[in-house]
Amino acid sequence: MTVGRPREFDETEVLERAMQLFWTRGYEGTRLAELLTAMQISRQSLYDTFGNKRSLFLRTIEHYRATQLTHALALLERDGSPLENVKAALGFFQDLAADDRCRGCLVANALVEVAPHDPEIAELLGDTLDLLQGGLQLALERAQAKGELAGDKSPRGLAQALTNSMLGLAVNGKLRRGPAALREIYDGTLVMLD
Amino acid sequence: MTVGRPREFDETEVLERAMQLFWTRGYEGTRLAELLTAMQISRQSLYDTFGNKRSLFLRTIEHYRATQLTHALALLERDGSPLENVKAALGFFQDLAADDRCRGCLVANALVEVAPHDPEIAELLGDTLDLLQGGLQLALERAQAKGELAGDKSPRGLAQALTNSMLGLAVNGKLRRGPAALREIYDGTLVMLD
Repeated sequence: MTVGRPREFDETEVLERAMQLFWTRGYEGTRLAELLTAMQISRQSLYDTFGNKRSLFLRTIEHYRATQLTHALALLERDGSPLENVKAALGFFQDLAADDRCRGCLVANALVEVAPHDPEIAELLGDTLDLLQGGLQLALERAQAKGELAGDKSPRGLAQALTNSMLGLAVNGKLRRGPAALREIYDGTLVMLD
Repeated sequence: MTVGRPREFDETEVLERAMQLFWTRGYEGTRLAELLTAMQISRQSLYDTFGNKRSLFLRTIEHYRATQLTHALALLERDGSPLENVKAALGFFQDLAADDRCRGCLVANALVEVAPHDPEIAELLGDTLDLLQGGLQLALERAQAKGELAGDKSPRGLAQALTNSMLGLAVNGKLRRGPAALREIYDGTLVMLD
């Protein structure tokens, strides 16, 4: 392989592999050599395409938004019962927490590990939470309009509290809590919507 | 200073300093040299008294339990209204999230960073969450007995959901969310208890 001459590769596929590694190992815990092995590209290709480790990490958070978060938001925008859609979105995070790889959520992980000392990443992560909260709020407003949610509840306040609970589930996912405990968290949280 | 001859120091005070550093910088992000500077003890004293970096970290989690967690549990055990006590405990985590050092909570930080690859630390952290959840459940049972909480609610399920929300607040504390957003999370979460 000629150094300096990028191999041909699918950028999205390579980003997906980097994302999986950062998600599992964290930012500091992921070494450049491991990234190169996982991404199956040369060091030069990585630098040419993604810049340094930090800028690659930023790109993987954007990729996570475009895949995982988009999936959760799509649940909220389905036809049918908006309230059931909100429950499904919470269920999405319950499933994340039940994953036996104990990876939690890349956004929550990066919030804990990287955000406090990196304002640019903190802004991207805060913006990602706002997207989720905005989707929840719209669904709760639709639920209220349909009479599925009591008129005296605040869709905005509940969306904030639910987003916060989803972050909590992401952290609980770092332990092997077992399906019964996760189900109790899910059921207890949904009492907000009664 | 003679190597191998421990200086005299207050173990709790020294643990407190190590805890503050781990809390702010994380486990991997804290270097041994920084620990020695913060703890103001020699390398030999650290090894003699606390073992290696990992066993020191375990001791700081125990110290965190004995200080921060004990403070939250004490709020739950005060005389007066058990329901107000539960609200005060949630307020304790709201204050933690509002801290402009963006440190979050040592337990949540360690859950994200260390638990997935260290079963002993994971068990200690899970046990710490169980203590908090147990305290919340007892307070909610007392609230129910006093008629402050509806009889059809599950103190256990709500305690699980509230503990999860407290973890969420700890993660939100890594961002500068601002008091208004944190207040919305607090209010929205308490809707569970209505």
